[in-house]
Amino acid sequence: MEERKIIVGITHGDINGVGYEVILKAFSDPTMLDLCTPVIYGSPKVAAYHRKAMDIQTNFSIINSASEAQEGRVNIVNCTEDELKVELAKPTQEAGRAALAALEMSLKEYREGLFDVLVTAPINKHTIQSENFHFPGHTEYIEERVGNGQKALMILLKDDFRVALVTGHVPVSEISKDLTQELIMEKMTIFHRSLKQDFGIDNPRIAVFSLNPHAGDCGLIGSEEQTVIIPAMEEMIKRGVQCFGPYPADGFMGSGNYRYFDGILAMYHDQGLAPFKALAMDEGVNFTAGLPIVRTSPAHGTAYDIAGQGVASEDSFRQAIYVALDVFRNRCIEKEISAHPLRKQYYEKRDDSDKLKLDTVDEEQI
Amino acid sequence: MEERKIIVGITHGDINGVGYEVILKAFSDPTMLDLCTPVIYGSPKVAAYHRKAMDIQTNFSIINSASEAQEGRVNIVNCTEDELKVELAKPTQEAGRAALAALEMSLKEYREGLFDVLVTAPINKHTIQSENFHFPGHTEYIEERVGNGQKALMILLKDDFRVALVTGHVPVSEISKDLTQELIMEKMTIFHRSLKQDFGIDNPRIAVFSLNPHAGDCGLIGSEEQTVIIPAMEEMIKRGVQCFGPYPADGFMGSGNYRYFDGILAMYHDQGLAPFKALAMDEGVNFTAGLPIVRTSPAHGTAYDIAGQGVASEDSFRQAIYVALDVFRNRCIEKEISAHPLRKQYYEKRDDSDKLKLDTVDEEQI
Repeated sequence: MEERKIIVGITHGDINGVGYEVILKAFSDPTMLDLCTPVIYGSPKVAAYHRKAMDIQTNFSIINSASEAQEGRVNIVNCTEDELKVELAKPTQEAGRAALAALEMSLKEYREGLFDVLVTAPINKHTIQSENFHFPGHTEYIEERVGNGQKALMILLKDDFRVALVTGHVPVSEISKDLTQELIMEKMTIFHRSLKQDFGIDNPRIAVFSLNPHAGDCGLIGSEEQTVIIPAMEEMIKRGVQCFGPYPADGFMGSGNYRYFDGILAMYHDQGLAPFKALAMDEGVNFTAGLPIVRTSPAHGTAYDIAGQGVASEDSFRQAIYVALDVFRNRCIEKEISAHPLRKQYYEKRDDSDKLKLDTVDEEQI
Repeated sequence: MEERKIIVGITHGDINGVGYEVILKAFSDPTMLDLCTPVIYGSPKVAAYHRKAMDIQTNFSIINSASEAQEGRVNIVNCTEDELKVELAKPTQEAGRAALAALEMSLKEYREGLFDVLVTAPINKHTIQSENFHFPGHTEYIEERVGNGQKALMILLKDDFRVALVTGHVPVSEISKDLTQELIMEKMTIFHRSLKQDFGIDNPRIAVFSLNPHAGDCGLIGSEEQTVIIPAMEEMIKRGVQCFGPYPADGFMGSGNYRYFDGILAMYHDQGLAPFKALAMDEGVNFTAGLPIVRTSPAHGTAYDIAGQGVASEDSFRQAIYVALDVFRNRCIEKEISAHPLRKQYYEKRDDSDKLKLDTVDEEQI
C-alpha cells in the first residue's frame, strides 16, 4: 500500500528497566522489518549491553538521524552521553536524563517529519523529572510539545476492548469535584472521533460507566449519575454519538458485555484500569488519542522486579507497534476518503414526500 | 466425617429472575445430594413452574420445616401465599414479598438450629424493601437479624482469589472521608480472622490496595496512603498480621501478583469488584464473613436479561454451596483443635538463654 514502509520512532525509555529487552526481542523476529522501519532513539552502547546480557539476536545499524534510516534494518540514533551506566532495577538520575534526551530528540525529528509514528518504551516517572520535564507522564509531555494545542486522551486497548478515562491522575477525594458535564463531553468527543478516524469504526458504540457503585442505585449512593453523567450523555446523543449506560463497572465487566461495545468511557483511573489490566495486561497497549502524532506504548511499566533477567514478554510492545501502524493507515484512509466530500443530502421525513432536499443546512459536525 | 450430612438452607430470592433456574440446575446433578441435604425456602408451585418451563430434571419433596428434611432429597418449605404470579424479568412487589418471606422463615429456622449453612439466591434490592426490610442487601439484613452484634465483612472469592472491601455502598465523593485508620483495621481484623478460621490458612498474607492512583505517587496524587493506610498497616503488623502494600490496584491486578496472596483488601467498591468480576464472575462466590452464621451467595444478580431462557449458568451457585460447606467444616475443625489450648510458651530472645519462659504474659489476641 505504501510506497515506502512506515517509519516507527522508538524511544528507549528507562535504561534500567525492561525497555531494551522488549524492543530488541520484538525485532528479533525478522518479519517485523517487513512491516515497518524502526528508528530507536537511545544509546547503541546500552542496546549492545542488554543484547549481550540477555543473548538476544537482534542486530542494529547506528545512524545520525532518522533521515538516514534504512529499510530492512533496526536503526538506532545515539541521543545520550557516551558513558552511560546501566544499573538494573535502580532509579538513577543518569537513566532519567537518558530517557528525556531520547524523548526530546525523537520529538525534534518528528517535527521535522523524519518518522511517521512514535512508540515509547516505559520511563521512570520520578527520575525523568527535570527543568524540561515536569509532567505526570509521556501523554502530557507529548500533548504539550507536539499537540498543536489539541487535547490528548489516553486509550488502553487490546483488540476491540478499548477503555478511556474521564479523570486521570487525581486523588479519589477530588474525582467527584473534577467530574463535570463539560469534561465528560470533551473526553467522549475525542474518544468518538478517535474510534472513527483511528480505528475505522463508522458509528462507534460507547459504553459509559457510572461514577458510584450500582450506578448510584437511584440516588441512594450518590447523585452524579443524574446531575452530571446522564445530562452529558443526553447532549452527546443529540450530537449523534451512540452512547449507552451509565453502567456499574463491576457488573458490566463481570457480564462480559464490554465485548458488545467499541469503547468504554470510565469515570476514573482505577475503575477503568484495574479491570482492563486484570484482563489484558500482557498484550495491552496505551494509545494517545486526540493529537496529530500517532503515539503508542506498552501497557506495562519499567518492571524493575524482572529487569535484566530475560523473562520480560515483548508481546505488549509488539502490539504497541501494530496498533501504531494500524492507526497511521486508518488515518491515511480517512484523509483520503474525506478529502473531497459530497454535499450532505437530506430526506425530509416530515412531509412524507420522500424527496431529496438540497436546501437544508448541514448539521453540526461532531 | 459428619454423622449426618450438612443441611444447607437455600432462599429462593427473586422469583422473576434466574434464582430457581440455578438452584434446580445445581441439584439436577444427583451427586450434589451426597455432599449435603438442601432445604429450599420458597414456593413449591413456583419451583414447579420454572422446572417445567425450562425442562430441568430435578425432583423435590415438600416439607413443613427443615426439621423434616430428608437426606438424599431436595426439600422445599413453602414460605409464600398460594397464589403467586411469576412475571419473568419484571420487578414486582409480589416477588419482593415472596423473597422477604423466604428470608424471614429461613432465619427463624436457623435460629432454631434446623440447618447449618445458608445460601441465598439473588434478590431484587428494590422490590424487597418494606417495613421489615430497609437494608442495601442481604449482608446488612443478616448481620442485624442473626449477627449477635458482630460485624459482617463481604468477601468475594473464587478459589484462592479473595477480595474484601473497606468501604462499600458509599458515593465516590465520600470514600476518602469514610476511610479511617480504625475502619481499615476493623475490616482487616475480620478478614484475617476469617482467612484463618473459615479457610484454614494458618498465617494469611493480605495485600492492601492504595486509595489513590499509583499509590498516591509519593503524595503527588493524594495523601491517604501516608496518613491513613500505612499507619493502619503498621499497627496491624505489630499485632502479628502479615499485610503488604499499599499496592496500586491496576498494576497489581495486571501483574498477576494477586496469586501470591491469600486475600486482597480493596479500599472501595469498584476498585475491588470491577477487577474481581472481570476475572471471576462466572464462578465467583460472595461470602459473609465475621458472623456466627455461614452464608454465601452467587456473585451474580437476578439477571433479568436472561431470566426464564434456560441459559443461566449454575456454576456460581454450585460454588456458593461448596464454599459454604468448606467454611462450615473448617470452623468445626478450628473449634475442635482450639477447644483445649496449651498455655502459650515463650522463648526469651533477649538474654540468649534460649530457655523456655513460663512466666510471661499472653500476647494480645488478634
